[in-house]
Amino acid sequence: MAVNAPLNRKLRMGLIGGGQGAFIGRVHSIAAILDNRASLIAGALSSDPARAKASAPDYDIPPERAYGSYQEMVEKESKRSPEARIDFASVATPNHMHFEIVKAFCEAGFNVVCDKPMTFDLAQAEELAKVVQKTGVVFAVTHNYTGYPLVRQARDMVHAGELGEINALRASYLQGWLRTRLETQAQKQASWRTDPKRSGAAGCFGDIGTHAYNLSRFITGLLPDKVSCLLKTFESGRPLDDYGSAAVRYQNGALGTVTASQISHGRENDLWIEIDGTKAAIEWHQEEPNKMLVRVNGQPHRLYTRAGGPYLGATAAASTRLPSGHPEAFLEAFANIYTAAYDDMARRASGQKVDAANSLYPNVADGVDGMNFIAQCVASSKEDGAWKSLRHPLCRT
Amino acid sequence: MAVNAPLNRKLRMGLIGGGQGAFIGRVHSIAAILDNRASLIAGALSSDPARAKASAPDYDIPPERAYGSYQEMVEKESKRSPEARIDFASVATPNHMHFEIVKAFCEAGFNVVCDKPMTFDLAQAEELAKVVQKTGVVFAVTHNYTGYPLVRQARDMVHAGELGEINALRASYLQGWLRTRLETQAQKQASWRTDPKRSGAAGCFGDIGTHAYNLSRFITGLLPDKVSCLLKTFESGRPLDDYGSAAVRYQNGALGTVTASQISHGRENDLWIEIDGTKAAIEWHQEEPNKMLVRVNGQPHRLYTRAGGPYLGATAAASTRLPSGHPEAFLEAFANIYTAAYDDMARRASGQKVDAANSLYPNVADGVDGMNFIAQCVASSKEDGAWKSLRHPLCRT
Amino acid sequence: MAVNAPLNRKLRMGLIGGGQGAFIGRVHSIAAILDNRASLIAGALSSDPARAKASAPDYDIPPERAYGSYQEMVEKESKRSPEARIDFASVATPNHMHFEIVKAFCEAGFNVVCDKPMTFDLAQAEELAKVVQKTGVVFAVTHNYTGYPLVRQARDMVHAGELGEINALRASYLQGWLRTRLETQAQKQASWRTDPKRSGAAGCFGDIGTHAYNLSRFITGLLPDKVSCLLKTFESGRPLDDYGSAAVRYQNGALGTVTASQISHGRENDLWIEIDGTKAAIEWHQEEPNKMLVRVNGQPHRLYTRAGGPYLGATAAASTRLPSGHPEAFLEAFANIYTAAYDDMARRASGQKVDAANSLYPNVADGVDGMNFIAQCVASSKEDGAWKSLRHPLCRT
Amino acid sequence: MAVNAPLNRKLRMGLIGGGQGAFIGRVHSIAAILDNRASLIAGALSSDPARAKASAPDYDIPPERAYGSYQEMVEKESKRSPEARIDFASVATPNHMHFEIVKAFCEAGFNVVCDKPMTFDLAQAEELAKVVQKTGVVFAVTHNYTGYPLVRQARDMVHAGELGEINALRASYLQGWLRTRLETQAQKQASWRTDPKRSGAAGCFGDIGTHAYNLSRFITGLLPDKVSCLLKTFESGRPLDDYGSAAVRYQNGALGTVTASQISHGRENDLWIEIDGTKAAIEWHQEEPNKMLVRVNGQPHRLYTRAGGPYLGATAAASTRLPSGHPEAFLEAFANIYTAAYDDMARRASGQKVDAANSLYPNVADGVDGMNFIAQCVASSKEDGAWKSLRHPLCRT
Repeated sequence: MAVNAPLNRKLRMGLIGGGQGAFIGRVHSIAAILDNRASLIAGALSSDPARAKASAPDYDIPPERAYGSYQEMVEKESKRSPEARIDFASVATPNHMHFEIVKAFCEAGFNVVCDKPMTFDLAQAEELAKVVQKTGVVFAVTHNYTGYPLVRQARDMVHAGELGEINALRASYLQGWLRTRLETQAQKQASWRTDPKRSGAAGCFGDIGTHAYNLSRFITGLLPDKVSCLLKTFESGRPLDDYGSAAVRYQNGALGTVTASQISHGRENDLWIEIDGTKAAIEWHQEEPNKMLVRVNGQPHRLYTRAGGPYLGATAAASTRLPSGHPEAFLEAFANIYTAAYDDMARRASGQKVDAANSLYPNVADGVDGMNFIAQCVASSKEDGAWKSLRHPLCRT
Repeated sequence: MAVNAPLNRKLRMGLIGGGQGAFIGRVHSIAAILDNRASLIAGALSSDPARAKASAPDYDIPPERAYGSYQEMVEKESKRSPEARIDFASVATPNHMHFEIVKAFCEAGFNVVCDKPMTFDLAQAEELAKVVQKTGVVFAVTHNYTGYPLVRQARDMVHAGELGEINALRASYLQGWLRTRLETQAQKQASWRTDPKRSGAAGCFGDIGTHAYNLSRFITGLLPDKVSCLLKTFESGRPLDDYGSAAVRYQNGALGTVTASQISHGRENDLWIEIDGTKAAIEWHQEEPNKMLVRVNGQPHRLYTRAGGPYLGATAAASTRLPSGHPEAFLEAFANIYTAAYDDMARRASGQKVDAANSLYPNVADGVDGMNFIAQCVASSKEDGAWKSLRHPLCRT
Repeated sequence: MAVNAPLNRKLRMGLIGGGQGAFIGRVHSIAAILDNRASLIAGALSSDPARAKASAPDYDIPPERAYGSYQEMVEKESKRSPEARIDFASVATPNHMHFEIVKAFCEAGFNVVCDKPMTFDLAQAEELAKVVQKTGVVFAVTHNYTGYPLVRQARDMVHAGELGEINALRASYLQGWLRTRLETQAQKQASWRTDPKRSGAAGCFGDIGTHAYNLSRFITGLLPDKVSCLLKTFESGRPLDDYGSAAVRYQNGALGTVTASQISHGRENDLWIEIDGTKAAIEWHQEEPNKMLVRVNGQPHRLYTRAGGPYLGATAAASTRLPSGHPEAFLEAFANIYTAAYDDMARRASGQKVDAANSLYPNVADGVDGMNFIAQCVASSKEDGAWKSLRHPLCRT
Repeated sequence: MAVNAPLNRKLRMGLIGGGQGAFIGRVHSIAAILDNRASLIAGALSSDPARAKASAPDYDIPPERAYGSYQEMVEKESKRSPEARIDFASVATPNHMHFEIVKAFCEAGFNVVCDKPMTFDLAQAEELAKVVQKTGVVFAVTHNYTGYPLVRQARDMVHAGELGEINALRASYLQGWLRTRLETQAQKQASWRTDPKRSGAAGCFGDIGTHAYNLSRFITGLLPDKVSCLLKTFESGRPLDDYGSAAVRYQNGALGTVTASQISHGRENDLWIEIDGTKAAIEWHQEEPNKMLVRVNGQPHRLYTRAGGPYLGATAAASTRLPSGHPEAFLEAFANIYTAAYDDMARRASGQKVDAANSLYPNVADGVDGMNFIAQCVASSKEDGAWKSLRHPLCRT
């Protein structure tokens, strides 16, 4: 089990979004408390005040902290004593509302954990990065797949030089659930994801392609140079892409590819990544997250397993709860994002320095990186795959 | 997400065991609240009163309900008003203490969730079955692997006749962690599991073989007839078995095998089961719990996935939290045992009838079955594999 | 077992290349006779006459038909009676020699089975297509992976509409053996493959990328439109590409990707393909060729196995030799290319019409397609991924 | 490619059985010549003289050596000059005819490769062992699964002590094709396999259980002590077992299990083995023969692949033909049995000593071992799993 951070109390959480019918809000609420380091004590669970209040009992939020709007929550929580007010807000609303909500909480001094993609568009992301920097709050964006222990192990191995120089990356995220136009059948998840007004400039690439790109960046730390992207809409009438492929050139000369699909029959949540280095190569699949292949020419392929032994590094070990062979999965990885952010929140609360730029959890720079990736992919695709720069001054280096 | 049961409030949980250094107590505490249907509010976390109280903050148990012993807990919780006292006790102590603890809570009218194996020996199990029946409390034993959605799906398929008559079962549970005598190195988990005074008459077969047997029974509902068992101790000096193999004859003529190992290098928690029916066959592996193979001669093999589609039945659907492809794992399955027990606790609390004999969760009859299996395996092995009866009047039929 | 074709005798084979130290010549010689429909009776096994003759006993080629050069073979075999002369020549020399050899045999009226890539460059391929058409000989190029029974099954399924309209294709061929500059160590296979004078304009993409492209075309029958390709050389000093990625636009609007690598640590011969249709999707991996996944949203994934049952079509059934579960592999698939060509050779020998344009085996049009793909990929890569047309009048439609 | 043995000519093969409609005869004929070290030149292809002669052209056997009976073949081949007569006979008839045929060829001084099980019953096997020893011929029985390169690698690893002392073995061979009574539908393969007059005392256990046992013995070299076996017939009316399970005690204290089934829906030819040693453990599956798992506690699992690199020993290297990643399969493994026997035949032909007792190929002692295993399993099963001795003076030690 994760050891408690220095702060000798549980963190107080407020949840924005997550009202009845929501999926990701519930995930946030479970993940945030899985290690018993936080309590959910306040919520603005819906943009509809009545529904917001009606949803509160599902989360054991007392009526006096079940707010009708996020604005009310910011205002009233700010007025509470430091010993009572929330430490952080988790934002689990549709994409187009993230910016104003996050900004409000940051400016009021609250830490924030925000669902991805971080904002509706790149301009918002850039502004948000400035807000976060200025306010000094702890900010995390839930590129949750980076929370898997073996993904973190991969990152440590790359950073320790075990793969040598990285030459090639292949990341892919395949789903099939939008093979038909579910959005015309009032399916809530499909509706906002295929609506440019709520989802942003990209559909499939914004929703899941950005995860595949983020995973490439997280594990290797390579700096991106340019992207050439082709987006497709295979379901006729859908206003956003539901399939796409991108080539990414990295500044060190590596070549990456990102493929994403929402129209591949029978694919569920098939995110995978392969990384080729001069010394070794790595392969990992999200649907079987407890194992990872490490290959070196002429040697037996090595199958790493979560908690499999002392060959795993400290980060992976600290990211796991159960003995080997007792599978962990999506919720635990999501919780690991929270746990890493809690460490920084505890540091901030106790007046220690927070090294936000090098956080283990995805931070606002990663959020900008993701929004920039989406923006450049859309721009590239409009010009038939023309190369667009991915160099952005606000991304993590 | 699971829908709340009729009882319109959260259940109140007390935890026995789970003090610092424990593994399974933490698992119980996470699983029990995963669906937000219970709160942990009291504990007797260690048989050492000082450590019991010191461990309480880890679980947010307030000092006034951090008891120094289970006896104190029974006594003081009984005195609280019905609106305040715990609804159930979770017992996560070493095996040899289960009986007296469970008995005390049952006789005081508290529901109980008990770790497995249920008791130290068969005689205790038989007595406990009578206690449970007499007191009418809800009692569950955490044969947790039955909580996996696809295991429940398998059970529904067998019961619906999709496999036809069951002819053969193969269940296996392989681990490697006791390949060396860890117990001589003060490793807590190894120490009690290899100590006949705390673990009971069997080591490997009591700890994990019984899970494999239970899984066979749970999925098929077949009634056992006889067992022939061979237990081995491969690590010299160890007083209990660390490997074994058993043949099980079922009353319908089916032949089952159970294999269990703690000395198989590199095996982590490799529990699997295969079931051959006259119409179809099933294969499932605990380490990759989100998929299951269903085979029919002459047809493509069918790969079922958790939440994979409407081909899954209602029980599997109600046992899953996340969309398909978002893997769930050990904790969620463990939580599913709790959730099923909560449904019965809610019924009992609201005065409804509880059909304990046919519970979805493993009940006291299953606990007796498991203890009987262990007892007969040990007896058989002592007589070189002689057949011993598995027919027991208290087992589930 | 495959049924003999109408021609009531074994075909007589001559082998060009395959002398001591060669790999692919031996593969041709085994595959060609696996079904006992041909005998190897003549050879020009090396461009070095002495070695050519010295190698003959390894193949049981009698001295009088162990020729010192392919020219001698053409000349002397032509002079033999129709009842004695070879029916076909198998050309297994390095790429740069294919053209003149194949041309000579075709013009002398002999059928030819040629290793891939068909020629050194596109101009040669175009000329060869004309030669083959003019002479009316049976000509096959060993894009051998199309010989796997389940690949042919996939093709039949696409053609029968089981996948609906094809939207997306992903094909990948990963190897690791050129991770170091083996070519500097006098490793024969590495030397010619990395030498532009013997291998042609592309290295990795010519050697294996073209297989991945060919597989996409073979299974779907989609007509290509344009390609955008990025080739990389990661091993410093190597004159040809050892990694690359291409996007392929098909005329029906489908988007394909082709990835190929020779520098991915530990990858052996990892050719795989995934095809997304509007009704179903398919996934197949060369290293586990006896199974194929067929997926449809909301249904259990279907695992097809070679010889697995009547759900397989006639082509797959005719392409398999052993009962299900008795794995077949590379040699059998290679033999299937020969067997299909034999059917046409038998037709030609007995004066029947040969429908060369629609052959099951890869024909000269496919060879042109492959060479065109290589040429356009190289051209595109030189212009940073500019789109190049893949429409070629001589490709199969 | 395998290097030619000292004998500087191809061996001459005669085939008994394999007439039209046969399966295993064709497999023998392909495997025997795969490496071009033998030629099939004579045959007694059926017990029906007319069909025997009619089948000869399928194998290119000239009419003068297409015999009407095996007796005729023995007689006439014996009369030919040593330079012309066959070197060995391959016996691919139904089980009940093996003995008299093999005996006749041995006594005439011909080497023999015999299909398995070696004889109809144990008494015949014992007598045959004496005949082979007395005559000094090379004799191999095609327990063909021992021919897989990675199986041989496993054996070398055990013998080199890489697994330490062997404690436990689990071998299983599952099929589903006799789930219905195919034998009542004139299916040739099913008919003789379920007929005690042609198949012997056991059905499933004789046909495939013996392979699983043989594989255990081959890899580990452990000497068996006793067996307890349970045989079942699940298809009503079938006179022989179609399912069974056995426990095997080895003389060193190891415990093995053998499971075999012909009634497991959808299982094709699922032979697998797991071996637990004190230092490492191994897992191999026949349906994916090009890989093998090697596990050691606390280390990444190691995935060995056929031809995967220098970590493989000399025996595995000499048993493979293609580069890594180019899968080999059933036929190549079968051919490896022949190749090993050819080495001894060449030694015998050139007057060298043949170390028959330690042959790499399964020899007559292994054939006795297999027949003894069947006999003792049947006897044990009749007495409800009573222990029967597997110690037999003629088995390999």
